Amino acid sequence: MTFSALDSELTGPLFASAGMRAAFSDRARIEAMLRAEAALAAAESSAGLAPKGLAAAIGKITADDLDLAAIGARAGDAGVLTIPFVQAVEAKLPANLRGHFHYGATSQDILDTAMVLQMRAGLDLIEAEISAIVAGLTKLATAHRKTPMVGRSYGQHAAPISFGFAVATWLSGIGEVGAGLPRVRERALVASLGGPVGTLAALGNKGPAVVAAFAKELGLAAPPIAWHVTRARLAETGAWLGLLIGALAKMATDVVHLASTEVGEVAEPHVAGRGGSSAMPHKRNPISATVILAAHGAAGGHVATLINAMAAADQRPAGAWHAEWHALPQLFGLASGALREARRLAVGLTVDKARMRTNLDLTRGLLFADAVASALAPKLGRDAAHRIVEKAADAVRETGMTLREVLAKNATLPKADLDAAFDLTPAVDAAAVMTDRALAEAKAAVRALTAKRKGR
Amino acid sequence: MTFSALDSELTGPLFASAGMRAAFSDRARIEAMLRAEAALAAAESSAGLAPKGLAAAIGKITADDLDLAAIGARAGDAGVLTIPFVQAVEAKLPANLRGHFHYGATSQDILDTAMVLQMRAGLDLIEAEISAIVAGLTKLATAHRKTPMVGRSYGQHAAPISFGFAVATWLSGIGEVGAGLPRVRERALVASLGGPVGTLAALGNKGPAVVAAFAKELGLAAPPIAWHVTRARLAETGAWLGLLIGALAKMATDVVHLASTEVGEVAEPHVAGRGGSSAMPHKRNPISATVILAAHGAAGGHVATLINAMAAADQRPAGAWHAEWHALPQLFGLASGALREARRLAVGLTVDKARMRTNLDLTRGLLFADAVASALAPKLGRDAAHRIVEKAADAVRETGMTLREVLAKNATLPKADLDAAFDLTPAVDAAAVMTDRALAEAKAAVRALTAKRKGR
Amino acid sequence: MTFSALDSELTGPLFASAGMRAAFSDRARIEAMLRAEAALAAAESSAGLAPKGLAAAIGKITADDLDLAAIGARAGDAGVLTIPFVQAVEAKLPANLRGHFHYGATSQDILDTAMVLQMRAGLDLIEAEISAIVAGLTKLATAHRKTPMVGRSYGQHAAPISFGFAVATWLSGIGEVGAGLPRVRERALVASLGGPVGTLAALGNKGPAVVAAFAKELGLAAPPIAWHVTRARLAETGAWLGLLIGALAKMATDVVHLASTEVGEVAEPHVAGRGGSSAMPHKRNPISATVILAAHGAAGGHVATLINAMAAADQRPAGAWHAEWHALPQLFGLASGALREARRLAVGLTVDKARMRTNLDLTRGLLFADAVASALAPKLGRDAAHRIVEKAADAVRETGMTLREVLAKNATLPKADLDAAFDLTPAVDAAAVMTDRALAEAKAAVRALTAKRKGR
Amino acid sequence: MTFSALDSELTGPLFASAGMRAAFSDRARIEAMLRAEAALAAAESSAGLAPKGLAAAIGKITADDLDLAAIGARAGDAGVLTIPFVQAVEAKLPANLRGHFHYGATSQDILDTAMVLQMRAGLDLIEAEISAIVAGLTKLATAHRKTPMVGRSYGQHAAPISFGFAVATWLSGIGEVGAGLPRVRERALVASLGGPVGTLAALGNKGPAVVAAFAKELGLAAPPIAWHVTRARLAETGAWLGLLIGALAKMATDVVHLASTEVGEVAEPHVAGRGGSSAMPHKRNPISATVILAAHGAAGGHVATLINAMAAADQRPAGAWHAEWHALPQLFGLASGALREARRLAVGLTVDKARMRTNLDLTRGLLFADAVASALAPKLGRDAAHRIVEKAADAVRETGMTLREVLAKNATLPKADLDAAFDLTPAVDAAAVMTDRALAEAKAAVRALTAKRKGR
Repeated sequence: MTFSALDSELTGPLFASAGMRAAFSDRARIEAMLRAEAALAAAESSAGLAPKGLAAAIGKITADDLDLAAIGARAGDAGVLTIPFVQAVEAKLPANLRGHFHYGATSQDILDTAMVLQMRAGLDLIEAEISAIVAGLTKLATAHRKTPMVGRSYGQHAAPISFGFAVATWLSGIGEVGAGLPRVRERALVASLGGPVGTLAALGNKGPAVVAAFAKELGLAAPPIAWHVTRARLAETGAWLGLLIGALAKMATDVVHLASTEVGEVAEPHVAGRGGSSAMPHKRNPISATVILAAHGAAGGHVATLINAMAAADQRPAGAWHAEWHALPQLFGLASGALREARRLAVGLTVDKARMRTNLDLTRGLLFADAVASALAPKLGRDAAHRIVEKAADAVRETGMTLREVLAKNATLPKADLDAAFDLTPAVDAAAVMTDRALAEAKAAVRALTAKRKGR
Repeated sequence: MTFSALDSELTGPLFASAGMRAAFSDRARIEAMLRAEAALAAAESSAGLAPKGLAAAIGKITADDLDLAAIGARAGDAGVLTIPFVQAVEAKLPANLRGHFHYGATSQDILDTAMVLQMRAGLDLIEAEISAIVAGLTKLATAHRKTPMVGRSYGQHAAPISFGFAVATWLSGIGEVGAGLPRVRERALVASLGGPVGTLAALGNKGPAVVAAFAKELGLAAPPIAWHVTRARLAETGAWLGLLIGALAKMATDVVHLASTEVGEVAEPHVAGRGGSSAMPHKRNPISATVILAAHGAAGGHVATLINAMAAADQRPAGAWHAEWHALPQLFGLASGALREARRLAVGLTVDKARMRTNLDLTRGLLFADAVASALAPKLGRDAAHRIVEKAADAVRETGMTLREVLAKNATLPKADLDAAFDLTPAVDAAAVMTDRALAEAKAAVRALTAKRKGR
Repeated sequence: MTFSALDSELTGPLFASAGMRAAFSDRARIEAMLRAEAALAAAESSAGLAPKGLAAAIGKITADDLDLAAIGARAGDAGVLTIPFVQAVEAKLPANLRGHFHYGATSQDILDTAMVLQMRAGLDLIEAEISAIVAGLTKLATAHRKTPMVGRSYGQHAAPISFGFAVATWLSGIGEVGAGLPRVRERALVASLGGPVGTLAALGNKGPAVVAAFAKELGLAAPPIAWHVTRARLAETGAWLGLLIGALAKMATDVVHLASTEVGEVAEPHVAGRGGSSAMPHKRNPISATVILAAHGAAGGHVATLINAMAAADQRPAGAWHAEWHALPQLFGLASGALREARRLAVGLTVDKARMRTNLDLTRGLLFADAVASALAPKLGRDAAHRIVEKAADAVRETGMTLREVLAKNATLPKADLDAAFDLTPAVDAAAVMTDRALAEAKAAVRALTAKRKGR
Repeated sequence: MTFSALDSELTGPLFASAGMRAAFSDRARIEAMLRAEAALAAAESSAGLAPKGLAAAIGKITADDLDLAAIGARAGDAGVLTIPFVQAVEAKLPANLRGHFHYGATSQDILDTAMVLQMRAGLDLIEAEISAIVAGLTKLATAHRKTPMVGRSYGQHAAPISFGFAVATWLSGIGEVGAGLPRVRERALVASLGGPVGTLAALGNKGPAVVAAFAKELGLAAPPIAWHVTRARLAETGAWLGLLIGALAKMATDVVHLASTEVGEVAEPHVAGRGGSSAMPHKRNPISATVILAAHGAAGGHVATLINAMAAADQRPAGAWHAEWHALPQLFGLASGALREARRLAVGLTVDKARMRTNLDLTRGLLFADAVASALAPKLGRDAAHRIVEKAADAVRETGMTLREVLAKNATLPKADLDAAFDLTPAVDAAAVMTDRALAEAKAAVRALTAKRKGR
């Protein structure tokens, strides 16, 4: 284990996806910084502020050309990563270009823009996972629109639903947050370029033009004013990742409960060797849900850190900006693992319909007590109906008979009404109606997501 | 002090606005619950599921008719607020209507919908404050587009900006979060109605129609599926409030520093008796900034609580839902105080232009060392220029003379170039350009905000 | 609902105890401030710095003599509670004493000391609850030392334990945090007196003597140096409350699961009208656990707020100190409700031993697969034993027979070894041994707690 | 950058110490797991439950013998790190010992115990840093006991103190948290061994003896009962680290302000190439304070995560335990960097006494207005004295003269009393008295710390 379980060779593969680990690697970081510097050179060159060949010369340098450990060691002394980075890159440039490198920019311009480029890669990975999860849950909810299942509140049996309805709830929760992705992209994928105090004064009156060209070069939006100390873009992205993990955690919470030995209504998809216990060969632990819930446990704290970091002093703060580095990338890492596991659940959850049916009867019909009282009320009067049902319920608890059996002994009760009251169909039909509405909503959300992307 | 400083008779007036305190009072809560019940009755009555007169009968009951302390005491025993509330209201209804009250609904339907109604009132208050702050900061930034001021990073003088630019940064930060309000309304102002397990099964096939009518009655959107356990609507609203307070905290952080005795560039608006010290009569403490920063200190934790609460089990959780009550209303309270104080700052900040100009010279011209070296480079060569400036900077530190004075002794240096290098105009002009861009952005944001509202 | 659910007339009785609500009421706050002022007067008078009669004159004033709402309104304007408070109290004093009131002190001295006095009352309430919980759980664990129950990990049946062992784990978790109370008292119950910048310069060389007398007067410890800006005392207290609520939440989490319909091994103590549902008459919701888990959901955020507030600038910060008021009292409120409900569980939990026994058999003996393989290994060889058990386990899953039944068909297997392998006794005995160790630890912890208190 | 800035080759050297990075490396993790397994074998062997040679055989295996990446990849599939670890180690053991390896233990036993061993190494590093900081601050406070400086509240000049008093406040804040280290060790350095459900049933009646031997072998304490699901030990350690970072952040907050260009009273120790800016050659940024404040920004969230993780279900939770891995090691990493930088400040801070004296006069004597009024009161009467001073203060603001100069014009005022009122000595002496008290407290704290360690 390293400080973060996400970065460890031992635990990283479990908690974060390989793609996201690559997107937030040191190497990817350096590549993004190089890309930002090259874009700056190109933008300045088009404004006549840098020699034509500079961007191309930077473009030839890769992370392999640089000694990352040496840069890191010097950054530890200097206190800022960009200084040794700029020196190392400059040393690789032809002598005549060196003086023009990084012109007019400040450390934060390069570091923030590089972070945005990494975030863009991360958001692309996330979009793919969300789409797959929505597709998987859509299929699952559709298949089980009318699979009877007990609804639970406070851990107690409450009233019948369908399993499809339960899945549709997960789908709705994940879809409604996922649908916010285009807005997150709009807010977050913005270049950072302001120079030492945000005014780009070194570029004379060409500041806005260079910002525009810089952003365009990178496929990012150009900010109206430097965002060195207005950090809502990042805090908002982090909050969205927290919400996304939260929506996944709802599903994971349910999976752990539904997969518990006593409930047994679902099981995580079987993967050889997964979820076993070193000591207990009969077990199949809900590993996917565990990864999601662990991510959820850590997410809220990181979001709070980002919100706290918004109080950035003056034109650059001492600490608030740096605190973001301790939080934002980890939210991407946590989300990547949680999404990968949620996709596994969405496409592969094992469902035990028979067990769902069995569990519905666990309370021996008491689940229907309310419906029975309502059904008898028109004929017997509300109070009499209630008294009869209450007494019958007591008998159920005392004798172990079912409510139906107890009531059947009373020949005066209208059998047809009782049949109707114990009929699961209306409850399940009502659940299916709501399921269908959630499915339609999810479809629209995904369509919007895709449309936005196509239009990029 | 009560448990929350926001609720205290002693400290509440300082930390929360009177309007928000009313919107989240117990009385407002009960009124919102009554309103939700009346809307439910009206919706059910239009679907033939409730007697016509029920809604009107509920509508006649007000908080004054109910004994809130008694309801609270019984809720403490029952564990749920709605049960004694329903009983108390039912007792006020004509006997023939009683059995139809609260039909098909569950506690959470009424409590969630009431919370949404309170949030709507809260968001209206917030919108008004944001508009006033944006207007105030727009005026302030415009007035000081070209007021020279030193830009600071890590607490150190860095390079010149204008005070208008600093204000435009605040404006941009608050405006970009404020612009998210329409989306927050869209996400949050949604009715909650699902019955015991979210399916509205008791209403037969009329569930969706009743939800639609219920929502319309209240001026809220209708959800496709119950959101009893998909809580992103609330967590997202809470996160937005956290971001908003964060954006205000950026301004407040700057105000505390700029108003400090040594800097003295701004002061909080003078209000008789405000900001004085019981022991030190010469002081004027930045009270508005203090209120904002205290709100910011508490906001992140509440947002984390809401994100954590998203892991809501099954069809209703034991605890996750209730944890929201410990967090969400307080974010409204904290925001109300922070916004009120931010408005005071935005419209009334005292600016000391002369002090800003004086502070620019505190480093005796070293602020311009970089510009001087650049200005001399074309004629003397880059390295020679640098050596000259470095030596001159040493002399500044040793002798107490200004950089200009030191350099003036060297007759060989081109005076015109020096004049240009020490000229604040280009830096301030660059700041003004960015200021104008931020002003345009803020104008568009507010227009969008207003347009949306008008279209409601 | 007010901003905090703890302060609401409607929800406060559910979420906080009546005693704690009184201890943190506005009235208690004012009384504590008056007490601090009287102690200051007494201390100064004994040092010859205040007239003899001042303390007595202050002592005659009560909260009833002051208009709290008016003080609050003026504090909202002034920005500091103490200024209008001092003026209001001064006005009640004989004219000749007025000029000596609050001499040499600063606002924070009185507010911090008053908070400490409220905390002392709160900690006394908490100690009583912890003692009752430990006593209740001790009795429960003792009674069920050997009541067989299935142990679960990841929600899956793992291996047998005893219910007493499960309870002993709760007890150990609550006891080990509770045992920290004496240290919390030692750290937190310290008077605050430093004057405007912490040096008590106005008192000449009598500062330390007055601090000592002031603290003694209040039954508090005297700090070596003012703690206006070293806030670990409060953050540490808050963290301890968070840990305490966390330990209670472990028990509550288990209770919700064990009380769920499918598990049914425990139920919250029956209280007429409690835990019912407005829509589902057959339910008994775990309300106590819900209150505890809601408190836990909110606690972490408050602790983070207090840790963040430690970065208090200079000799008094603008915001960090005030943020504490948004967090610390609520932790006392949340703890009070959580403790009250935990006590209910500890002394009244309904235990269903038969259901525990039944649940042990839910996997039809697979729980013993490991033990069986071990038991057969000496005679059959390890690999052969494993193969036999694996095959038998498959038959269990396919046929619905128990593992014992399947294995009984194989006449060659040594019956005595099988009997031993399926015997719960060794597992339950091992659990009882650990239970006894935890009981001894808890006994020692409580004894230490009581000893410390007696010695105060 | 990796997900955590602490783990990055690029930013890790800045934010975490080399020693702590080694203590929490993957390699150290594996070594600690091997050490735990060897201790288990030794303990079991002494109880006759494992072959004599097993511990020695395990002891010969090192991290170099294992393919960490392969173990990590398989853990990603299996969901638990211990399973592939156990298999990999087992494969390295002589065939006859294999079946006895990891006997009776569960994954969590090894992972928790390994974490405790890493924490022990981390706490040793932390103790050394705390001692060095306390020593450095003690020297600094002693040297400046009577160096006059202005005290500030809310960023405003308040009254004179000494710089030594300000340092003594830092010292007191850090020392009081640091003094908690022995208790943290006592609470945290406890072995974890419970087997699958915490009862060690597989060891028959030898469980307690094996736990005792296991713990002794590792130099850890033995728990009375398994702490698989009572996590206060870890949450408490994390909270303490958060408090420690919070105490350091108080000092860092002050350093940033005192080192700001306008205040200029201190500067971070000069290190060649450190704190420079890529764009602004004249700057010296407070890098040490920045590292500390960034750590502080992230700490609170991690502490909240650990408190939330205490709600660990049953005998092992699905997620709560794993969330700890996302938080606890990072608190050690953050603390290590913050402590290293705090030590740099404590031993090397540059102090500008002249500037402190100059700043005292910034308000041209208004700082003494209160003292002057008090000094004149006996002779002129309180009201008259006040009126005179108020008028004089107005003149100070209008004319730019000092208060002393203005008052000197009024020949009727007693010069000796004025001299006394403007004399810094009493204020500075009062500060020195408090400084000495804090120094004595710190000395005692360190002595206790050292004594405990020696006694280990």
